[in-house]
Amino acid sequence: MTGSAAVLDALRSALGDAVVTDPARLDAARGDKSGHRSAAPPLAIVDARSIEDVQATMRVATATRTPVVTRGAGTGLAGAALATTGEIVLSTLAMDRVLEIDEDDLVAVVQPGILNGRFNDILGERGLWFAPDPASRAISTIGGNIATGAGGLLCAKYGVTRDAVLGLTVVLADGRIIRTGHRSVKGVTGLDLTALMVGSEGLLGVVVEAVVRIRRRVEGAVATIAAFFPDAASAARAASAVSSAGVQPAVMELMDARSLAAVDALLGTTMGAAGAAHLAVQTDGPAASTEAAEALAIIESLGGSAELTTEPEEGERLLAVRRAMHPAMERLGTTLIEDVSVPRSALPAMFAAIADVEERFGVTIPTVAHAGDGNLHPNFVFEGDVVPDHIWEAADALFSAALALGGTLTGEHGIGVLKRRWLEDELGADQVELQRGIKAVFDPLGILNPGKVFTPLVAG
Amino acid sequence: MTGSAAVLDALRSALGDAVVTDPARLDAARGDKSGHRSAAPPLAIVDARSIEDVQATMRVATATRTPVVTRGAGTGLAGAALATTGEIVLSTLAMDRVLEIDEDDLVAVVQPGILNGRFNDILGERGLWFAPDPASRAISTIGGNIATGAGGLLCAKYGVTRDAVLGLTVVLADGRIIRTGHRSVKGVTGLDLTALMVGSEGLLGVVVEAVVRIRRRVEGAVATIAAFFPDAASAARAASAVSSAGVQPAVMELMDARSLAAVDALLGTTMGAAGAAHLAVQTDGPAASTEAAEALAIIESLGGSAELTTEPEEGERLLAVRRAMHPAMERLGTTLIEDVSVPRSALPAMFAAIADVEERFGVTIPTVAHAGDGNLHPNFVFEGDVVPDHIWEAADALFSAALALGGTLTGEHGIGVLKRRWLEDELGADQVELQRGIKAVFDPLGILNPGKVFTPLVAG
Repeated sequence: MTGSAAVLDALRSALGDAVVTDPARLDAARGDKSGHRSAAPPLAIVDARSIEDVQATMRVATATRTPVVTRGAGTGLAGAALATTGEIVLSTLAMDRVLEIDEDDLVAVVQPGILNGRFNDILGERGLWFAPDPASRAISTIGGNIATGAGGLLCAKYGVTRDAVLGLTVVLADGRIIRTGHRSVKGVTGLDLTALMVGSEGLLGVVVEAVVRIRRRVEGAVATIAAFFPDAASAARAASAVSSAGVQPAVMELMDARSLAAVDALLGTTMGAAGAAHLAVQTDGPAASTEAAEALAIIESLGGSAELTTEPEEGERLLAVRRAMHPAMERLGTTLIEDVSVPRSALPAMFAAIADVEERFGVTIPTVAHAGDGNLHPNFVFEGDVVPDHIWEAADALFSAALALGGTLTGEHGIGVLKRRWLEDELGADQVELQRGIKAVFDPLGILNPGKVFTPLVAG
Repeated sequence: MTGSAAVLDALRSALGDAVVTDPARLDAARGDKSGHRSAAPPLAIVDARSIEDVQATMRVATATRTPVVTRGAGTGLAGAALATTGEIVLSTLAMDRVLEIDEDDLVAVVQPGILNGRFNDILGERGLWFAPDPASRAISTIGGNIATGAGGLLCAKYGVTRDAVLGLTVVLADGRIIRTGHRSVKGVTGLDLTALMVGSEGLLGVVVEAVVRIRRRVEGAVATIAAFFPDAASAARAASAVSSAGVQPAVMELMDARSLAAVDALLGTTMGAAGAAHLAVQTDGPAASTEAAEALAIIESLGGSAELTTEPEEGERLLAVRRAMHPAMERLGTTLIEDVSVPRSALPAMFAAIADVEERFGVTIPTVAHAGDGNLHPNFVFEGDVVPDHIWEAADALFSAALALGGTLTGEHGIGVLKRRWLEDELGADQVELQRGIKAVFDPLGILNPGKVFTPLVAG
């Protein structure tokens, strides 16, 4: 038998019909929602149904030195779960149960494959809620959320994913299991491996269970503001002023002129005529009305033309423009959705930098921002399936601008393969060396998601 | 020259009069607020005034293979900063400046030596606030807070220390510098070394600067409830019911009968006659009154006899009993302050377990709990300076009970030397092995705080 045949044989004898080699499924595992695709399909997919299946897969992988790419719903935006020749895809999508909901301690125990939206539907039946669900909640899994440190719209007020993950059950590269963290609010026993696992993009182990903090649903009316501004920089200044005044919106979303134009084209609306940037603000909780009034005053004093409502249906109408962004982008062509994050006060400067990049590289970059936390999603639009070089050059300039403003390469999507060449620009060589060292402690054979996050040490 | 003389010589030529060998100061570095002391005084103390001093110290330590114990104010409760024969104490207490306060982005940059209370005084002048300051705020440093992952009274509502630390500047064992994390709310570039550093108890590097989240001060009236219950278990049940009803107190503190008796002895009061357990609840923010009314109803329905006030002075009076706890303990004798944390709903069971340990081992364990987050501080009272064996046996039984209830050995004090023998009971051998591996990546020579957290691999 060849090496690959031997691996398949070992997988099948350990896992039976959980091992899939259907060409369509193997082909799908080459890509994710970034649009990026690997060079060739992987060897096989294991549809793990249990922790034991995950352990069996890792034991075969260790014994045969076969790379493993853990994968959920494939909705990543940085290529962290792309699989290629000779690799085993370990799918945790079928491990999709909520194992426990503890309303007294406000924790839940979940398997990694459950969709964020489905989890929140189940919690919602009991008046509960998991805060850090990303915008992709309808199609993305909790496991992917944890693997990337995904964020979403509500992080400024309700925390990032790391803050909500209390404990993890992790299968290591050789099939052993560790249980990190705790169920209690506090716990500082030893090094914080739970936090280290969040955002580790499949490099350190396979998350098979998670203990997460849940919340009681926020009661009371929600207030929604929609405002138009003459330009993105002034909208960004208003957003920053709202935050620094101590108002804490649940949602604060900024769209630039190109984004508005794209949404107008999709919906047949004429919002672009009302202004060149759109800011949507939503407040919740007991101070929702007071906070919204304060935000409205700030927005109007800084040149915004705004509407405020506390009617739920009207609020949904005001947010419709933001919700139409993704479908609108899909109509423009292929997009590289970027994900830089800067300190809130640097948002106006970042919008100026984006305009500069557009001009210098002759590209179009509709941009939306989670303005409450300084996280921008510039959308690089291009023709065809492969990101052209000039788009990467423009992205390079954009990353440099974000780092120069005290920001980061990625606020919530991760590094994957798409951004690994910039990793050292942000972290520095010494920190990258430490991170590689940690990776080697967890994965001495280098079989967990090789080639992701870090550039290969040897070209390959 | 002997080895020690050569190290001192190298330190003095690199650091001049920052090197201190005053016997009284060396002796003080043998202990901390746990009451525990090392076998003998360290070699020298370096009073670092700058990052360069820290780097110079670590370069000498690396060149001479000399152990380094980083130390702030010495207020630790687990012996993590005790120094002994042949060790260099690296004091960051003189690096005590606030380098930046950014009111727009609500972040501050601080040096490690600033006291938590002093930092909050400076922030308070601008209407700002750093939430995770521990009960020891008046005497403990931010550096120590970060090193231990210290908590305090407000964590359930306002987050733990890890949630508030966005980025760190760290001097590595060999004197190199890394900058982890970011200034933005979000950021997921690479592995989360910022979170890994929080609570790492001096094992991985020396924190020389921190970027922390700050908040606008919470406006409006504060409501305070003081309630007496017939026993600690019923007070704990009420506390748990308040949380699970979705009320989010800023402070919720529980004292048992032995604690009340000690405070009565200190203050000459007769609170013990009013009930056998005391629960103090404080709500803040726009819903303070509503939440307090809801909490009061729950407390009374569960057997509590309660007072509620929104007058600040009266509120302080109601909390005075809790604030008197530490001085009251000091009058009882020497105390080993323990720090287990359990899921909130397990608080009644944990109080029952403590009563059982008292009976089995013939010891007295006055206990207070941060009831909002399930963190208990059982105080083992004994005679003399050294924790007697039977107290450790009782503590062992208490730790086992906490772990059996899904809890942790330490909620906010750390492992240090006092709890290292139980580390593996909580984490398991495989996880400890990984943690040791991470330690070795950061500190291949094993010179950073050796013998802390992990038991020595070779007896010594």
